[in-house]
Amino acid sequence: MSTKTRVAILGATGYTAVEAIQLLLRHPHVEVTAVTSREPGRRLTQVHPALTGRLDLVFEEYTTPEKLAEKADVVFGCLPHGASASVIPGLLNAGCKVIDFSADYRLNDPAVFARWYGSESHDPTRLGHVPYGLPELFRPSIVGAQLVANPGCYPQTVVLPLAPLLKAGLIEPTSIIADAKSGVSGAGRNPKLNNLYPECNESISAYGVGTHRHTPEIDQVLSIMGGTATEVIFTPHLTPMDRGILTTTYSVPTRQVTQAELYECVREFYKNEPFIHVVDDLPATKHVAHTNFCNMALRVVRGRVMTIAAIDNLIKGASGSAVQNMNIIRGFPETTALL
Amino acid sequence: MSTKTRVAILGATGYTAVEAIQLLLRHPHVEVTAVTSREPGRRLTQVHPALTGRLDLVFEEYTTPEKLAEKADVVFGCLPHGASASVIPGLLNAGCKVIDFSADYRLNDPAVFARWYGSESHDPTRLGHVPYGLPELFRPSIVGAQLVANPGCYPQTVVLPLAPLLKAGLIEPTSIIADAKSGVSGAGRNPKLNNLYPECNESISAYGVGTHRHTPEIDQVLSIMGGTATEVIFTPHLTPMDRGILTTTYSVPTRQVTQAELYECVREFYKNEPFIHVVDDLPATKHVAHTNFCNMALRVVRGRVMTIAAIDNLIKGASGSAVQNMNIIRGFPETTALL
Amino acid sequence: MSTKTRVAILGATGYTAVEAIQLLLRHPHVEVTAVTSREPGRRLTQVHPALTGRLDLVFEEYTTPEKLAEKADVVFGCLPHGASASVIPGLLNAGCKVIDFSADYRLNDPAVFARWYGSESHDPTRLGHVPYGLPELFRPSIVGAQLVANPGCYPQTVVLPLAPLLKAGLIEPTSIIADAKSGVSGAGRNPKLNNLYPECNESISAYGVGTHRHTPEIDQVLSIMGGTATEVIFTPHLTPMDRGILTTTYSVPTRQVTQAELYECVREFYKNEPFIHVVDDLPATKHVAHTNFCNMALRVVRGRVMTIAAIDNLIKGASGSAVQNMNIIRGFPETTALL
Amino acid sequence: MSTKTRVAILGATGYTAVEAIQLLLRHPHVEVTAVTSREPGRRLTQVHPALTGRLDLVFEEYTTPEKLAEKADVVFGCLPHGASASVIPGLLNAGCKVIDFSADYRLNDPAVFARWYGSESHDPTRLGHVPYGLPELFRPSIVGAQLVANPGCYPQTVVLPLAPLLKAGLIEPTSIIADAKSGVSGAGRNPKLNNLYPECNESISAYGVGTHRHTPEIDQVLSIMGGTATEVIFTPHLTPMDRGILTTTYSVPTRQVTQAELYECVREFYKNEPFIHVVDDLPATKHVAHTNFCNMALRVVRGRVMTIAAIDNLIKGASGSAVQNMNIIRGFPETTALL
Repeated sequence: MSTKTRVAILGATGYTAVEAIQLLLRHPHVEVTAVTSREPGRRLTQVHPALTGRLDLVFEEYTTPEKLAEKADVVFGCLPHGASASVIPGLLNAGCKVIDFSADYRLNDPAVFARWYGSESHDPTRLGHVPYGLPELFRPSIVGAQLVANPGCYPQTVVLPLAPLLKAGLIEPTSIIADAKSGVSGAGRNPKLNNLYPECNESISAYGVGTHRHTPEIDQVLSIMGGTATEVIFTPHLTPMDRGILTTTYSVPTRQVTQAELYECVREFYKNEPFIHVVDDLPATKHVAHTNFCNMALRVVRGRVMTIAAIDNLIKGASGSAVQNMNIIRGFPETTALL
Repeated sequence: MSTKTRVAILGATGYTAVEAIQLLLRHPHVEVTAVTSREPGRRLTQVHPALTGRLDLVFEEYTTPEKLAEKADVVFGCLPHGASASVIPGLLNAGCKVIDFSADYRLNDPAVFARWYGSESHDPTRLGHVPYGLPELFRPSIVGAQLVANPGCYPQTVVLPLAPLLKAGLIEPTSIIADAKSGVSGAGRNPKLNNLYPECNESISAYGVGTHRHTPEIDQVLSIMGGTATEVIFTPHLTPMDRGILTTTYSVPTRQVTQAELYECVREFYKNEPFIHVVDDLPATKHVAHTNFCNMALRVVRGRVMTIAAIDNLIKGASGSAVQNMNIIRGFPETTALL
Repeated sequence: MSTKTRVAILGATGYTAVEAIQLLLRHPHVEVTAVTSREPGRRLTQVHPALTGRLDLVFEEYTTPEKLAEKADVVFGCLPHGASASVIPGLLNAGCKVIDFSADYRLNDPAVFARWYGSESHDPTRLGHVPYGLPELFRPSIVGAQLVANPGCYPQTVVLPLAPLLKAGLIEPTSIIADAKSGVSGAGRNPKLNNLYPECNESISAYGVGTHRHTPEIDQVLSIMGGTATEVIFTPHLTPMDRGILTTTYSVPTRQVTQAELYECVREFYKNEPFIHVVDDLPATKHVAHTNFCNMALRVVRGRVMTIAAIDNLIKGASGSAVQNMNIIRGFPETTALL
Repeated sequence: MSTKTRVAILGATGYTAVEAIQLLLRHPHVEVTAVTSREPGRRLTQVHPALTGRLDLVFEEYTTPEKLAEKADVVFGCLPHGASASVIPGLLNAGCKVIDFSADYRLNDPAVFARWYGSESHDPTRLGHVPYGLPELFRPSIVGAQLVANPGCYPQTVVLPLAPLLKAGLIEPTSIIADAKSGVSGAGRNPKLNNLYPECNESISAYGVGTHRHTPEIDQVLSIMGGTATEVIFTPHLTPMDRGILTTTYSVPTRQVTQAELYECVREFYKNEPFIHVVDDLPATKHVAHTNFCNMALRVVRGRVMTIAAIDNLIKGASGSAVQNMNIIRGFPETTALL
C-alpha cells in the first residue's frame, strides 16, 4: 500500500500538464495516479512522447468528483478558464485538495472577472476567499488551504520585483508600465494559425495591447502590495522561443532613490526565499529555463525605476508554482522536486 | 489599357502564394489581378500582412473558369492535391496558361498517382503529357506549354545534382539514398498540432519514412535521367527553421571516380544555367534563402558518391520555379524577377 | 564605358555590407566596383556565400582616398565607429559621395559624442553639418549632400512613430519610454561569446540598460521634433531571431486623446511616404522582414499613448536606408531597388 | 564531515560542464567541490548564470594532481582533446577516478588516434585499456575502472541502434551510412564565426564530410559489435537548435528482414536498460531533451534497414553518460540523478 500523495491531472494534454508530470516524477512523496482528457483512451505517452518509459497511464474521461477522489488526494486543474470553476466545487466537496491553473479563482471581485473574461464566474461566492498561490507574497494564506489559485505567468514577473518597492513606498503605484516578452508555449497547445512555427519564428510582436486578461490580476496584487487601487499599463509580446518570460517595468520613484537602495529593499524582502534570485547582472530567460527560479535585477535610469525579471513560464509561471503550492498545503519541504 | 501579363493566384492564402506574389510584384511585365480563397471577402493584406501597401486586392470566390479567364492570362494554381486537377481542365479550355503547384500533373502514370495519393487522378488522360516544370532538365518541353506541373520542393534537391551523374553513367541508379531536411513552411499553413512552434522548435525528426509522396516523383525523374527504372530511398526530416531544404544523397559509383571528375561532369552539365551554383564549399540553406538558386557540392567519401544540395523550398522549391516557368512560356527572359 | 553609378563598400565583411550589396545588385543604375577589408585577397563570395554567382569581386585593402575615388562615385562606409571619421574626410576631399553607416556623424554635438562614445570625434567640426539620413524626417537636407549620416536602427523605430505626435504637441516630450527588441544581427558579425547561437537561442534579455549609444541619437531627433530638449528612457532587448526590431513606446498625452486622433495625425504626416505603413493591426517584425518598410500602429491604453513600430534592422535599419539616401543624392527615384 | 563523493570539474567553462554540474546538484551522494579554468578567480555563476544561487564556487587554476586529489575523489575531465591526456595520468597516480569527456582515450589504436587527431597521443600505452563509457554496450568493463573514456555524442546515436542488429548478423557491416543532425551546442562554447547566432539560425548544413573525428570511434564500436572491420559513411549536419542529435542510418540487410524482426531483436537486447526506449513512432530530439534517454525507432524501406535515434547531446551525449559512468564506478544505483 502506497502512502504517497496521489495526484490527478485534470485536462492533461497541454504543455503545463506534461511539465507538472515531469516535476512530480521527481517528487519522492507523490504519485501521479490519473490523467483526464476529452479524448479518453489514448496513452499518455502518445500525447506526450517526452513521458515515454516514465509514466504508464491512459487518459480517462472525467466523470464524477467522487470517482476522481477515489484515486487522488490532490488535483491539478489544467482546464480552460470557465470550465475549471464548473468542476472544482464538486472536487472540493469530495475532499480533494485542488491547485487550479486557470484564472477562475484568481480575481477577488466577481464583477472584475466578468468584465475581463466576458462571462460570469461559475463559482462567484468563493471569489475573494481563495488564496492567490504566489507563496513569496501570500504564503500564510496558502498553508492549510483546500483550494489554491495558481498565479498567471506574466503577473509573477511584474509583481514579484515590484511588491517590495510598493510596500516600502518607493514607487508611485499609478506610474507602472510593464513590457513583457513571452515564449510561444504560453499560448497553449491548441492548433491556431498564430502559433504555427512559420508565423512565430523570426518575428516578435505585441498582442492583447490593453486587453490581456492578466491585467486585472496584476492590478489586484499591486493594489494589495501598495495599499492603493492601482492600474498597470501591461503589454505582452510574443517572442520566438519555446519558454520563458522576461518583463521590464518602468515606474516613477516617490523620491530620489539610488540603485543600491532598491537592491537593499528587494534583497531584504526576499532574503529567505529559495526561488528568488536578486541578481546584479541583467537576467535572461535562459538563466532560469527549466527551473522554478525568478531572477530579477533593478536599475535607476534617468530618474526612473526599472525592474527586469525572468522566469520559465511553464515552471515558476505555472507547474513549478503548482508543485510549490502543493508542497505547502501537504506539509512537504517547499523546494521538494523543484531544485 | 495594360499590356502586362495578368496573373491570378488560385488558392492564395498559403505560404507559396504570398511568396509568388512578392516575386511577381518585382516583375516588370506582370500584374497580379486576382486572388481566390474559400473565404472570399477578406483583404489580401489581412491574410498576408507582408503585402501591406504593396498589393490592394480582396479575395474572390472561384466561380467559373470563364470568369477567371476574363481577368487572367496565366493562373498560378495553389490548390491542394486533388482539388487542382478538378479545376485546371476548365481553365485550360477557357484559354488560360496554368502553372500548377500541386502534384496532380507531376506523375506520368495514373496508377502510380493513385497508389501514392490514395485516389484516382481527376484528369488521368492528361498525365504523361504535361511537362515537369524543372527547366534545368526539361526546358524544351516547357516552351510553349499551356500547362506546366511545377515540381515538388524535395525532388529538386535530389534530382538536380544526380541528373548529370546518372546521365553520365557514373552512379548506380539502384543505390541512391536521399536524406533531406526541410524547414517547416514546407508543411503548409493549415493549423496542425505538429506544426505549432513549441512542437517544432528545438527539435528535428524524420517523418513520412518510406511513405512521402515526393518519392514517386523522384523515382520518375531519376528513371528518365538514368534510363532505367529507379527506386530511391528517400527520408525527409522536419527542421526547426522557416524555409530551406538541404538534401544529402549517397550512392555507389559504377567505377572508381574522383571528386574532380564529379565536379567536371556536373559543372559542364549546368554551365549555362543561371540558377545552378556548383560550389566547392559545402552549401547551407542560408546561402540560398530568399533566392531561386540551387547550390550544390559533390564529395567522394570512402568510395561513395555524395551530393549536397540546398534550395529555398518556397522560392526555387515552389514560387520561384513557377515564375521561371511562366517566364519561359510567356517568352520573358528566364531570370526576370528572380535575381 | 559604363555610365552607372559606381559604389564601393568600405569594410564589407559584415551583415549590413552583404545586405547592401544584395540590394544594389537589383539597382538598374548602380554597379558595385570595390569591397575593402582588413584581410584583403579573399574572394567576396568566400566571406559572403550568399553572393555566390552574383558578384565576382576580391577584397581589397583600403590604401588612399584617391585610389578608391578612381573606382567609386559613392562610398558606403561600413567601418566601426571611430574608424569611420578617420577615413571619410579624405574620401570627401577626393570627390566621393559618402553614406556613413557608423555613428560618427549622427550626433550634432561633439561633447555628446565624446560622452557616449568614450573618445573625441575625429572630425568634430563637421558634426552638426551632416544631414541625419532619415529621409522621412530630413529629406530636404539630404538632397544634394555629399555626406549622409545613415541613422541607427533602433532610433528609427522610436522617432518615426513619435515625430508626428511630438510635432503636433500631442505627447509630453519628458514622458517617453521606448522598450525595443532586436534580432541578433544587430550585434554585428564579430565572434563574441554573447552572440553564439547557444547563448542567444531560446532566450531574451535586456542589455545596455541606460547606456546604449543610440540613446543620445534618439534624444537629438526627439528634441528637434518636439522643439524642446528631450531625454528618452530607452531599453534594448536581445531577441532570438536574425533580424527585425520591434519597439513599443509609452508616453503621456498632453491632453485627452483618442486613438483615432493619433492615427489621423500620423497618417496625414506620412501620407506621401512610400516606406511608411501606418497599420490598424499590430505589426510584427516578420511583416517587414527583407523590406525597407516601417510598419507602425498606435494605441491609447488607460490614458497613455503607445506606438508600436517594426522594421528590418538590416534593411530600413541600415542598408535599405543607405540605398534610399543614395537614391536621393544621386537623383534616382527614391524607391529604386527597394520595392 | 561529509561522506559524499567529491567531484571536481576540470575545464568547467563550457556547455558540458554546466550541464554536468546541474545533474550533480540533484545527486544525493555527490558534492561538487572544485571547478578549474584557465581564467581562475571568476565566480562560477558569472560564467554560468544558470547556476546562480545553486553552487557557490570560484574557478581555480589547475596546479598539481595532488592538490586536486585533496579536494576530489572523482574528476570530470572537460579539457580539449590533447590537453586531456597530458593531465589525466597524473590524476590517476594521485588516486582520482576520472571520467574523461575528451576523445583522448576513446580509440584503442594510437595510430588511428594520430591519423584522425593530427598528433600523437600523449598517453599511448593506455590506449586499448580504457573502457569506452557506453554502459549499454560495455558495462562490465566500466565497473571498477579508474578511468573511463566518456563516449562521443554522435557515435552513441549510430552504435546504440545498430549494435543489436550487427550482433545478430542482420545487417551488412560494410553498408552502413549514418546521416546525423546536431544542435549547435555540440560545437562548444568558444566564440567562432560559424557558431554565431545569425550564421546558424535559419540554416542547416553538412560539415566535416568524410573528416569528422567521430568517424573512427564509430568504426571501432561497429567493428567490435559486428566482429569484422567496419568503415561507416558518417555525415554530421549543423542544425539550428541548442541541443539534440537525431541520426538516421541506412544499411543493407544480410537477408530479407521484417520490421517486426528488427524490433524484436533490438527490444530483447535492451530489455533491461533504463535509458533506452525502443519506440514505435518516429523519435524527435525534443522527446529526449534534458534527459539521459536514447529513443530509437526501426524501419524497413524498399528492402533497406533504417534506424532513427535521438539523444540530448549534452546529457546522454556527454554529461548524463558521465554521471551514469560515475554511478557505476562508485557503486551508486545507475540511474541516480538521471531520472
